[in-house]
Amino acid sequence: MKEEIVSFQNILAASRKIGSFVARTPTYHSVVFSQRTGAEVYLKLECFQPVGVFKIRGAVNKICSLPPSELKKGLVTSSSGNHGVAVAYAAKIYGAKAVVVVPENAVKEKVEAIEAYGAEVVKYGKDYDEAYSKALEIQKKTGIIFVHPFNDSLVIAGQGTVGLELLEDVPDLNTIIVPIGGGGLISGISVAAKTLNPNIRMVGVQPEGAPAVYRSWKAGKIVEVDSVNTVADGLAARKPLDLTFRIIKKYVNDILLVTEQEIGEAVLALLHEAHILAEPSGAASLAALLSKYHPKPEEKVAVIVSGANISIDYLASLLKQT
Amino acid sequence: MKEEIVSFQNILAASRKIGSFVARTPTYHSVVFSQRTGAEVYLKLECFQPVGVFKIRGAVNKICSLPPSELKKGLVTSSSGNHGVAVAYAAKIYGAKAVVVVPENAVKEKVEAIEAYGAEVVKYGKDYDEAYSKALEIQKKTGIIFVHPFNDSLVIAGQGTVGLELLEDVPDLNTIIVPIGGGGLISGISVAAKTLNPNIRMVGVQPEGAPAVYRSWKAGKIVEVDSVNTVADGLAARKPLDLTFRIIKKYVNDILLVTEQEIGEAVLALLHEAHILAEPSGAASLAALLSKYHPKPEEKVAVIVSGANISIDYLASLLKQT
Repeated sequence: MKEEIVSFQNILAASRKIGSFVARTPTYHSVVFSQRTGAEVYLKLECFQPVGVFKIRGAVNKICSLPPSELKKGLVTSSSGNHGVAVAYAAKIYGAKAVVVVPENAVKEKVEAIEAYGAEVVKYGKDYDEAYSKALEIQKKTGIIFVHPFNDSLVIAGQGTVGLELLEDVPDLNTIIVPIGGGGLISGISVAAKTLNPNIRMVGVQPEGAPAVYRSWKAGKIVEVDSVNTVADGLAARKPLDLTFRIIKKYVNDILLVTEQEIGEAVLALLHEAHILAEPSGAASLAALLSKYHPKPEEKVAVIVSGANISIDYLASLLKQT
Repeated sequence: MKEEIVSFQNILAASRKIGSFVARTPTYHSVVFSQRTGAEVYLKLECFQPVGVFKIRGAVNKICSLPPSELKKGLVTSSSGNHGVAVAYAAKIYGAKAVVVVPENAVKEKVEAIEAYGAEVVKYGKDYDEAYSKALEIQKKTGIIFVHPFNDSLVIAGQGTVGLELLEDVPDLNTIIVPIGGGGLISGISVAAKTLNPNIRMVGVQPEGAPAVYRSWKAGKIVEVDSVNTVADGLAARKPLDLTFRIIKKYVNDILLVTEQEIGEAVLALLHEAHILAEPSGAASLAALLSKYHPKPEEKVAVIVSGANISIDYLASLLKQT
């Protein structure tokens, strides 16, 4: 048997280490979405993290583990945006310089946030995977540490702390619905939740326009899609990688695909009915609950609202339609 | 000397009592607004409370203190909206029926939230003060408990827990900027903060279109304004009342007025630059920091972002202008 990639103990350790810089976000019992679905719906509000996204958990857990000699040399990463914001924030805390490679179409507000935290932004390529190649090139040339957005056991353990908090708040949870890009979040939550309750149901969500993990999970092996096309920029990866995919294969019970329209409707539903600002990637989980997942009556379902960093142009265009 | 209305010990007690239902919100060091103002700016994100507003603190602290015999008879309150949402939420937790009187122009989304938590909404009058009279009438007729939105020492003590958290997070804070409607929030925070550090500067903010507390504070006695006109519906009270006014007279160092345009710009600044959804009343404090308050270099300023429950129509109209 292969060694565990991330253990429950790794997640407990992360939880102790990241506490000073990461919010203990609320698990909010939503009356409105419970009434609408007949389930007991809990929103885990990772959109309420200081940097507006769960990614801060993994980035802080990784960066606080690096030796000062490495931090001094600086860090490099690739990101569709949110992981870059989190790395820039964590690097600032630990006094490290950071270079963040983002695709050319990265959401403007995310790029501005990365720069505001003092990191250098390099725009490269048509999508996340091209930016990733460029970041690896910089890493090879300079020898500085690469902080992978998901395929790293410390990053996965950091994201797993979401699962600890969820089961602390709702110990008898039945189901957890999680958006999937590279799969770091669902991997970490799965290890935490399945350790505490092996019967818990882990449901992943991907956009129809970026279904690489869905297809890989169906095929039982890593499948790369040729291109991605979705407003959920945080979920637009062309393929999973080995660490997250191994955990997903082991633990995830189902993966659902949602349309662009369902994602937009979920962003609006959160705004109108709960006054919560979520970005498309962060609302994809609610989109799945409201459209594709059919909970049993009174099933206790947690929906991870993973981020808030929405493009204001997209928000304005959504509001115009209503 | 008059007896203390709210003591530091009352606030500590509230902090212990309300913990299960109220979020310990983040105090977020904002790089963007620090750079813009030259101060060290901390946003206290009460907009991240489960019901989207700090009011849950006072409502839970009040309602959990009531004897079961009173809870069984039900509760009545008046509110521009947010206190009503909080009372409906707390009443649901403690199994009490609640009647919430709101003015006829109350924000639609707030009314829907009150109803979603199972409370009865009565629409009455052209503004908060007229709704208040109606609620008192219901209280007299029925004899059930009236949960005042601000002029109640348990409610004020509940709001004061914001101050405890702030000084726990930033012990050497210099200044706290707080929006004022009836003055419950600034009263509670003032007692907590001035007890811990008598030199801390308390700055209140009111809209130019609803300056009753500002005028009262200037005059040294309660002044009623004839009418109020502001998009910051949570701050639209026509007069303060005795409890909050006595605390404000004692502790508040300055009160600033902001324009409707400054409020709108602050809502947009939070959205664009920090991806935080705040309602106009909740952004008034940032409006004051960005326009009327002139911090010293590196002054440590906390800005209370008190609520998120924005009218979607107003948000759409703001985004259209940009």
